[in-house]
Amino acid sequence: MKALVYYGPGKKSWEEQPKPAIKESTDALVRVLKTTICGTDLHIMKGDMPEVASGRILGHEGVGVIEEIGSSVSNFKKGDHVIISCVTSCGKCEYCKKGMYSHCEKGGWILGYMIDGTQAEYVRIPYADNSLYPIPAGSDEEALVMLSDILPTGFECGVLNGQVKPGDTIAIVGAGPVGMAALLTSQFYTPAEIIVIDQDDNRLAVAKTFGATHTINSAKENALIRVMELTDGKGVDTAIEAVGVPPTFELCEEIISAGGHIANIGVHGKSVTLHMEKLWDRNISITTRLVDTVTTPMLFKTVQSKRIEPKKLITHRFKLDQMIEAYDTFEHAAREKALKVLLEN
Amino acid sequence: MKALVYYGPGKKSWEEQPKPAIKESTDALVRVLKTTICGTDLHIMKGDMPEVASGRILGHEGVGVIEEIGSSVSNFKKGDHVIISCVTSCGKCEYCKKGMYSHCEKGGWILGYMIDGTQAEYVRIPYADNSLYPIPAGSDEEALVMLSDILPTGFECGVLNGQVKPGDTIAIVGAGPVGMAALLTSQFYTPAEIIVIDQDDNRLAVAKTFGATHTINSAKENALIRVMELTDGKGVDTAIEAVGVPPTFELCEEIISAGGHIANIGVHGKSVTLHMEKLWDRNISITTRLVDTVTTPMLFKTVQSKRIEPKKLITHRFKLDQMIEAYDTFEHAAREKALKVLLEN
Repeated sequence: MKALVYYGPGKKSWEEQPKPAIKESTDALVRVLKTTICGTDLHIMKGDMPEVASGRILGHEGVGVIEEIGSSVSNFKKGDHVIISCVTSCGKCEYCKKGMYSHCEKGGWILGYMIDGTQAEYVRIPYADNSLYPIPAGSDEEALVMLSDILPTGFECGVLNGQVKPGDTIAIVGAGPVGMAALLTSQFYTPAEIIVIDQDDNRLAVAKTFGATHTINSAKENALIRVMELTDGKGVDTAIEAVGVPPTFELCEEIISAGGHIANIGVHGKSVTLHMEKLWDRNISITTRLVDTVTTPMLFKTVQSKRIEPKKLITHRFKLDQMIEAYDTFEHAAREKALKVLLEN
Repeated sequence: MKALVYYGPGKKSWEEQPKPAIKESTDALVRVLKTTICGTDLHIMKGDMPEVASGRILGHEGVGVIEEIGSSVSNFKKGDHVIISCVTSCGKCEYCKKGMYSHCEKGGWILGYMIDGTQAEYVRIPYADNSLYPIPAGSDEEALVMLSDILPTGFECGVLNGQVKPGDTIAIVGAGPVGMAALLTSQFYTPAEIIVIDQDDNRLAVAKTFGATHTINSAKENALIRVMELTDGKGVDTAIEAVGVPPTFELCEEIISAGGHIANIGVHGKSVTLHMEKLWDRNISITTRLVDTVTTPMLFKTVQSKRIEPKKLITHRFKLDQMIEAYDTFEHAAREKALKVLLEN
């Protein structure tokens, strides 16, 4: 089969690889129908995650069709269409039992990271009963690819941890795909104002069409001053950090109101300065989270009922064997005006 | 009347001052029966809070008897015994309406800070109906002084924000009075293990008698290694920071388990390093809070029913006019083996 293989920082290849096989009775072998590229894949390609082995097939998002199941898989059968979750969960360990699948002792985020992933014609999915979700016939499978990672990530890490409530004023710092997922899903809770902050005018324009009430280009304006103008000097009830660098995190510290919530989504490579001398008495919360995917079934219903339309996050479509071209487009997202790139097998 | 007056860093005087008078219809004039000294008063004395004006009477804790009420005070009458809350609240503003009295637009923590306080024979209490709590006849008023500040502070900022649950393993970093208040009130929720960390063997010995299951002297042992030994390498479910300096906060970052809660109580004067590169995917929360005193009525019941006995936090007793001696004792708490010092009028 063909697959996208990582060979160390900056080195990747779309090449022939052995087709994976069932190893454990709880595995399923899935033929990939659609997959995509995540910002995290770019982090890996840059060498930010040296723990990823050379020779690894990347990718942790996608939908597919069951090709074969292990002897103990009972939720699925050959031919079923499934959403592949970015988080693998055994369903049996201490963490799974409390719904914290992201920290499953045998799983968590391993796909396209510690084990071979979805940017391939076939992928082996461990603990298939817990790590795959069924797709009913007639569903829009393009939209459902967004349920593998970005929708639950934006929702759980940003919106739920940020405790977004009706009437709130929220800020989303970073209008990449995950920030946009937070933007879409925050509207489940009817915040009064949604301020989106980014340095890319195109993304901000898209954010407006997705429900942002105000946008701030932080490369052109002082975001702190603008947010304070918009909030009578009080700051926002929830600040969602969807970038992962110190300046954006520290902006969240500055714009948060007394009693507010800073919900981190960004993948950080460096420490940040936490201004406890200003924040100790501000009654705030700061949260971090690797998506648990506990809300995947709930989000599935919102997509099926068209309460949200994550398909509009897809800006570019490629055939699976255009993988290198798709990476190039996604790596130059600003130039290409790209959000999510979809690859079809 | 006699009062403890702050005259800038390091300068204080126990001296004659004008007796306060009712200024607003919502005021009460209270004759102080018992008061105490808080670690925050020492911060002020050190000059850490330059916003405190020279000439300010310090003190934000105490019980007393109503001497006079303003015309619109309806909950109290002359002669009533009352707990004086460290937080003044108007009960009418946006923050009060959501129970965040600490950020009351006309109050919050102002007593002994922005207005004259309780280390005096008399004190004027604004918004008396909301800022005082009635004491039934026959109550142990020494115990109730602990309800002015340290019990709700330890409980709200440490235990509630730390989401302590039955079976949890928690760590309390700092065994001063507020850490001890968190230790006492954490036991409402029956954690399995309570690890108390401090650099003072006497305080750790006291913590054992108050319910700590393990103590660590971080001046003598590596606290991180010891906590990991005690938790199978997983860390604690809740880490309560009750010191307010970068090393203790950063210890909390190191000992927190995946899914855990860092609850800050400490008053910080400096920023801390937040290791987001390690914490971004750990599903943790970090909280800050100035005590709202929303739990004062609830804590009152636990004290009256002797579910907790905060009186045992009182290690030294003085007459009110021994104020300077009491400060000296509290400033040398380790040498004097002091927790709370009580002053009686």
